Amino acid sequence: MQRAAPYDRNEALKAAQDLFWRKGYHATSLKDLEAALNMKPGSIYAAFKSKHALYLTCLERYFDETVAALDARLEASPTVLDALADFVRAFGREHLASETPVRVCMLVKTALEATEDEPELRDRAQAYLLKMRAAFETCFRQAQQTGEVSGDHDPAQLAVNLQADITAIRIEAQQTGGSITTAWLANRKAQDVLALRDSPAH
Amino acid sequence: MQRAAPYDRNEALKAAQDLFWRKGYHATSLKDLEAALNMKPGSIYAAFKSKHALYLTCLERYFDETVAALDARLEASPTVLDALADFVRAFGREHLASETPVRVCMLVKTALEATEDEPELRDRAQAYLLKMRAAFETCFRQAQQTGEVSGDHDPAQLAVNLQADITAIRIEAQQTGGSITTAWLANRKAQDVLALRDSPAH
Repeated sequence: MQRAAPYDRNEALKAAQDLFWRKGYHATSLKDLEAALNMKPGSIYAAFKSKHALYLTCLERYFDETVAALDARLEASPTVLDALADFVRAFGREHLASETPVRVCMLVKTALEATEDEPELRDRAQAYLLKMRAAFETCFRQAQQTGEVSGDHDPAQLAVNLQADITAIRIEAQQTGGSITTAWLANRKAQDVLALRDSPAH
Repeated sequence: MQRAAPYDRNEALKAAQDLFWRKGYHATSLKDLEAALNMKPGSIYAAFKSKHALYLTCLERYFDETVAALDARLEASPTVLDALADFVRAFGREHLASETPVRVCMLVKTALEATEDEPELRDRAQAYLLKMRAAFETCFRQAQQTGEVSGDHDPAQLAVNLQADITAIRIEAQQTGGSITTAWLANRKAQDVLALRDSPAH
């Protein structure tokens, strides 16, 4: 465990997360990990136990980052719907920031890739996705309390719809490598969020 | 090539497509294929050349089936928007038909799984997705010609949005195993299609 000092560990996890996110669980070999982490197999096992355990740690790290990004938007925006619309719109702008990879959500990618062979990865990814959904539901509930969204909407359904829209934008972004189309789609979905103001449920 | 008589070949392709679609390209081993196709490795290679080539053949088969399903809807519906709305709604109803698996689109799954390791699979999947998008664009263009959709919409953008919505419904369906939530989401997106009637672009 001495090899994995706090700073190194964070750098290693960042590299592993990026590799797994890019290549997927199955296509990432131990050799790939050795190269990306610049660690020998023994050190990787000593620090992270197994490829499987390392993947789960990266997934948790990714989830925490996503929650933090949403919280930052909520903090910075005048209203909940503004925050959610900005959060959605950002996924269409990712290609403009060269450091941010244009990529589908790692949770969705994991849930789709890990089938019956890796039920724990799939279940964990799905659990995080449900937690994100619950966070969106809380947002819509708050927007109803302040009167920004009318009470006849179902916050749980609005959350499902929002999560579906974000997933769709990110898949479009990955497929096109980020493009004017992605920005347009993200903007359209962001407008759908803002259109909830004073609109009855349909 | 004698093992692959026309009928057998179709059955084998169906089994291979189902296996690949379920497990993904990387997690499907030759052993899995042998069991699913009930063929020896030599026969699989004789009939389909390689796992890679077999995957591409299955992907083409899947694409052809998807196009046929859209054509059938267009044939059966009074208007283009009705056909598209039915097409969308059907993805929320799949779990009711026990024989149809609740699963994300095989083209999307392939495009996400196959990264730099398998550029040909990724490129082929993306090309099929763009063809589907073009088919949707043609539908919206026709709806504009008959006056069902106002001329100030961009048919290309409507096609991007429709494809994104369908992808999102199918990911939701796979994650929940098909549920009342999926049916609700599909119905909401189908209503968005029908709402294009006489509505200006936004």
